Amino acid sequence: MSSTPWDFGVGKELKMVEDRLQEMTESGEGLLTEASRHVVSAGGKRLRPTIAILAYKSLGGEDTGKIVDIAAGFELIHSATLVHDDINDGGKTRRGRVTVYRKYGLHNAVVVGDFLFVKAFALGGMYDREIVRTTADACAKLAEGEIVQSRFRHTHDLDMDGYLQIMERKTAEPMKAGAVVGAYLAGGTAEEVRCLGAYGLNLGVAFQIIDDVLDFVGDEALTGKPVGTDLKEGYLTLPSLIAMKDSEEVRTAVAKAIDREDATPEEIGRCVKLVVDSGAIDKARAMAEYYAMEALQHLGCLPNTPYSEALRDLVSRVLERDS
Amino acid sequence: MSSTPWDFGVGKELKMVEDRLQEMTESGEGLLTEASRHVVSAGGKRLRPTIAILAYKSLGGEDTGKIVDIAAGFELIHSATLVHDDINDGGKTRRGRVTVYRKYGLHNAVVVGDFLFVKAFALGGMYDREIVRTTADACAKLAEGEIVQSRFRHTHDLDMDGYLQIMERKTAEPMKAGAVVGAYLAGGTAEEVRCLGAYGLNLGVAFQIIDDVLDFVGDEALTGKPVGTDLKEGYLTLPSLIAMKDSEEVRTAVAKAIDREDATPEEIGRCVKLVVDSGAIDKARAMAEYYAMEALQHLGCLPNTPYSEALRDLVSRVLERDS
Repeated sequence: MSSTPWDFGVGKELKMVEDRLQEMTESGEGLLTEASRHVVSAGGKRLRPTIAILAYKSLGGEDTGKIVDIAAGFELIHSATLVHDDINDGGKTRRGRVTVYRKYGLHNAVVVGDFLFVKAFALGGMYDREIVRTTADACAKLAEGEIVQSRFRHTHDLDMDGYLQIMERKTAEPMKAGAVVGAYLAGGTAEEVRCLGAYGLNLGVAFQIIDDVLDFVGDEALTGKPVGTDLKEGYLTLPSLIAMKDSEEVRTAVAKAIDREDATPEEIGRCVKLVVDSGAIDKARAMAEYYAMEALQHLGCLPNTPYSEALRDLVSRVLERDS
Repeated sequence: MSSTPWDFGVGKELKMVEDRLQEMTESGEGLLTEASRHVVSAGGKRLRPTIAILAYKSLGGEDTGKIVDIAAGFELIHSATLVHDDINDGGKTRRGRVTVYRKYGLHNAVVVGDFLFVKAFALGGMYDREIVRTTADACAKLAEGEIVQSRFRHTHDLDMDGYLQIMERKTAEPMKAGAVVGAYLAGGTAEEVRCLGAYGLNLGVAFQIIDDVLDFVGDEALTGKPVGTDLKEGYLTLPSLIAMKDSEEVRTAVAKAIDREDATPEEIGRCVKLVVDSGAIDKARAMAEYYAMEALQHLGCLPNTPYSEALRDLVSRVLERDS
């Protein structure tokens, strides 16, 4: 299960983020507390807070309290979108736990997501205009990414560009925002803020590609969800897009399955096997490596410190992850 | 249709709020723009912005730009909750239009509500900590009110206290927050902020009671929704609670209908008639008047200006409204 946060020398700060997450999910309404913590406390890698904290530290930021709140805010936004996404996707498990939607029902899942958003705003709104603008822009893009993704759900019309656009908005832009905010709060120069932003964006794309790869070849005991979930839910991702481009046979089979809402588990299983056997997984990994290298390159503008080193390690960890 | 905003001498400011609402609902994704404006541009009384602006003006606030953004923020929050509420209630029409949920589907409705929340945050987050805290607290209470309301849905266990608690959180607290923010931004004293807050809270309760009354005796051509909608959706409100307290016959009939999800339109119609015939409507109106008087009393601490007069008029308008 992906329940242990990564470390990278900022364990103390991440512990403070955890405390903040607990505190912010406390409500007078027991069900709201319980359901919020069901998702927030299910673990996860805390990648968004880690990026923000490392970006801050890498530019010499020393006031831990200053970065912890907004780092927790990014995790709350991420959690809110997970809860609302699962409503839309009908996902059964998340981080190895039953989804809020399945456990507490539609109504409560809508409200729990809203509550988590509000708590993120309560934290984020305490910062200056630049931070609020950056965070709000990333959230608006998230919503736009959701809309585009849903437009292409259960169709085989999506192309590689469209795929990249969706995942940039849904995954990479929020990571970029975390890096930008960290750099900005540390008093980084415009160039440093830009570099760290580009780092976050490219890291985010690499992260998402690996996520999509794990959906084909991951170990359920580690990822917390069965393989083929994306196809089952009607979404084409990089491995299937590559395989469909390379082979007419795969294209026909996957298109047939993805265009309907009632593809059987066996049919999905066959599609997963076709994609895996096509060699698309290695190609997708190669693309993730390309984005990882881009991310690393942007770190060139940083002073050499244990934190810039940790940002580098984070890239390798994202590529090598199995959960 | 309740499509004309009320005026009260702040038409210019309300026009600026409208412009801001249009601007904030603009998205690169056409569907997001369209669905957001479907709810935001459907009219409505703009009561929340009006309260915030009048509170600001009544204490001598002169920088219109300062109050317009947060006033628009409150309307965006209100719109977001309408979109998400309609998902939960299965409501078919809102402000005389098909609900976002019905028109654009579940997935889009979840995202559109999130988008409106985010845009409210983009506006509200530009203000200082006190404003952010006040606004975020009101939003968290909104979510809590939703949870409590849903717990009592389709049960006849709700009592008057429980009802008041729900509607304070869902309707009155946000109006209080608007008044508090307006007073605070105008540089009001702690006492003035407190008074205007109490005004907003009591006005909000009076407003909600009249809303509940109109659900029994309103004209659909004016309210934009058929009578009996609350009962049909499984919610007891003040008129039914009063009637059930007064008569065992009404209690039995309404309890029977409310405890099930499949009460027929005829059964709901009979319950509406029982409640109306019981005299509960006049009693509910009397309670609304009580809260209206409370609201008026709290205005005593304000200097006499056209704006304090407008705040008084607003109370009468809320009591007399038929839409």
